[in-house]
Amino acid sequence: MREPHFRQATILGVGLIGASLALALKKHSLSERIVGFGRRLNNLKRAKKRGIIDSFETDPVRAVIGSDLVVLSTPVGLFRELTQKIAPYLKKGSLLIDVGSIKGLVYEIEPLLPEGVDFVGCHPIAGGDRSGIDTSSAELFKGSLLIITKTESTPKGALRRVSSLWRALGSDVKTMSPEEHDRVYALVSHLPHLVAYALVNTISEVDESSIRFAGQGFRDTTRVAGSSPEIWRDIALMNRENLIDFLGVFKSNIERLIDILKDSDATALEKELSRAQALRARLNKR
Amino acid sequence: MREPHFRQATILGVGLIGASLALALKKHSLSERIVGFGRRLNNLKRAKKRGIIDSFETDPVRAVIGSDLVVLSTPVGLFRELTQKIAPYLKKGSLLIDVGSIKGLVYEIEPLLPEGVDFVGCHPIAGGDRSGIDTSSAELFKGSLLIITKTESTPKGALRRVSSLWRALGSDVKTMSPEEHDRVYALVSHLPHLVAYALVNTISEVDESSIRFAGQGFRDTTRVAGSSPEIWRDIALMNRENLIDFLGVFKSNIERLIDILKDSDATALEKELSRAQALRARLNKR
Repeated sequence: MREPHFRQATILGVGLIGASLALALKKHSLSERIVGFGRRLNNLKRAKKRGIIDSFETDPVRAVIGSDLVVLSTPVGLFRELTQKIAPYLKKGSLLIDVGSIKGLVYEIEPLLPEGVDFVGCHPIAGGDRSGIDTSSAELFKGSLLIITKTESTPKGALRRVSSLWRALGSDVKTMSPEEHDRVYALVSHLPHLVAYALVNTISEVDESSIRFAGQGFRDTTRVAGSSPEIWRDIALMNRENLIDFLGVFKSNIERLIDILKDSDATALEKELSRAQALRARLNKR
Repeated sequence: MREPHFRQATILGVGLIGASLALALKKHSLSERIVGFGRRLNNLKRAKKRGIIDSFETDPVRAVIGSDLVVLSTPVGLFRELTQKIAPYLKKGSLLIDVGSIKGLVYEIEPLLPEGVDFVGCHPIAGGDRSGIDTSSAELFKGSLLIITKTESTPKGALRRVSSLWRALGSDVKTMSPEEHDRVYALVSHLPHLVAYALVNTISEVDESSIRFAGQGFRDTTRVAGSSPEIWRDIALMNRENLIDFLGVFKSNIERLIDILKDSDATALEKELSRAQALRARLNKR
């Protein structure tokens, strides 16, 4: 399929994902001009200086005027307000995508858009605990998963264009409903984030100073607790129903371990650990 | 201080740590000859072929005869039985060390030893979730923490010799009591392991197939759940009292997150996440 080509693209929120997408669009000659919008002027100036964006605006409306592709890449908590502001000014025939980690929002964005503007929700599974333009890279999406959400309102043509855009950047594109996305990522991403934050808070409550004795295992297990509290507060609240369920299942697992340890039940404990090891091993084979 | 030199060293359990120690002793010319003992003949043969050990025995008593340094590096669950077997055959003036992740055991090993044999408990904070000789390396201990435990029975001369041995291999040596060690490592290592196993088991209970959508965050958070169930069963049971306490504190943190999500309390949630992020950030500065 022919890759989509844009005369002008606007990145609303020039952080790790937004800046990486800008770099990737340029590298693959998919956009002639890239406009950045953001809340921090210094960041926009640095992004321009580094050639990530060609120009910037501190007003989102000015930023989107005339653009063929507009990307929502601020923290997800700002998507709705931002879309409300820009909607009347989006060019007819233009494409709006978001790159947020939560996709239930798609249903709140869709009704805000005028006739003639297509919207497709996207979630690049990339970036890890990094943030900001300093670690941005045109290669960020290469070889990584990219979830596209499909609703009853998603135009088929837009779905094809957006898929081929991400494939051109090297992503492995999968399509699912927003509900399926939020359930799956509550489980494999949002829950692990909350667990990592809770684990670090446990250390801080019991004995903060012991952190200096931590080895690689602790570093790995808690790495995502270094992620932005603002971003993850929004994601967790927007996916709260799934998270309340899954935190409940997780809590039962913790309670089971406590009971097993209280009983000194070696057989039951090895069974629990082996079950987890076997599933985790499947991940390494992917 | 002069580094200790051994004519013959015995490695009881030629896994990642045992094999790496053998390689490091050879590299730094600290032992002329190295004898390996283990339960799997094939592994011993491979270790000899690769030059990790000079010879091997499948009987621990034969393995320790004539050695100046004996290292307990099997899973910790075997330490006591193994020490009972070899104790009468340990050479007068020899040094016994262990490299286990749990140090309360030190008090069970000490009374088993004959006059003239010194024992010092050691815990290299190295290796992560790896295991086996394939990933062993003479550099494993370089720049990594090494905890030495000191009890009322630990001879001062042995403490000095063991410290200088590990320092010669590049380790950053810290000394603490077995009780302090087990409390600290329950918190920064054993608890994170159990949490990672519980997290993977949660995925397996809710929807195993969603693991194929997992990104780097999930990989990091659950990496240690790939560790040996046998080894971690033993460690968890031997440190059960600390772990029952700390799993309880952790469980309260999970319950607090559930309550916050039920209340949709954005302020409280951001406070929890920020507290964790701040402490986690200190780890990166080390």
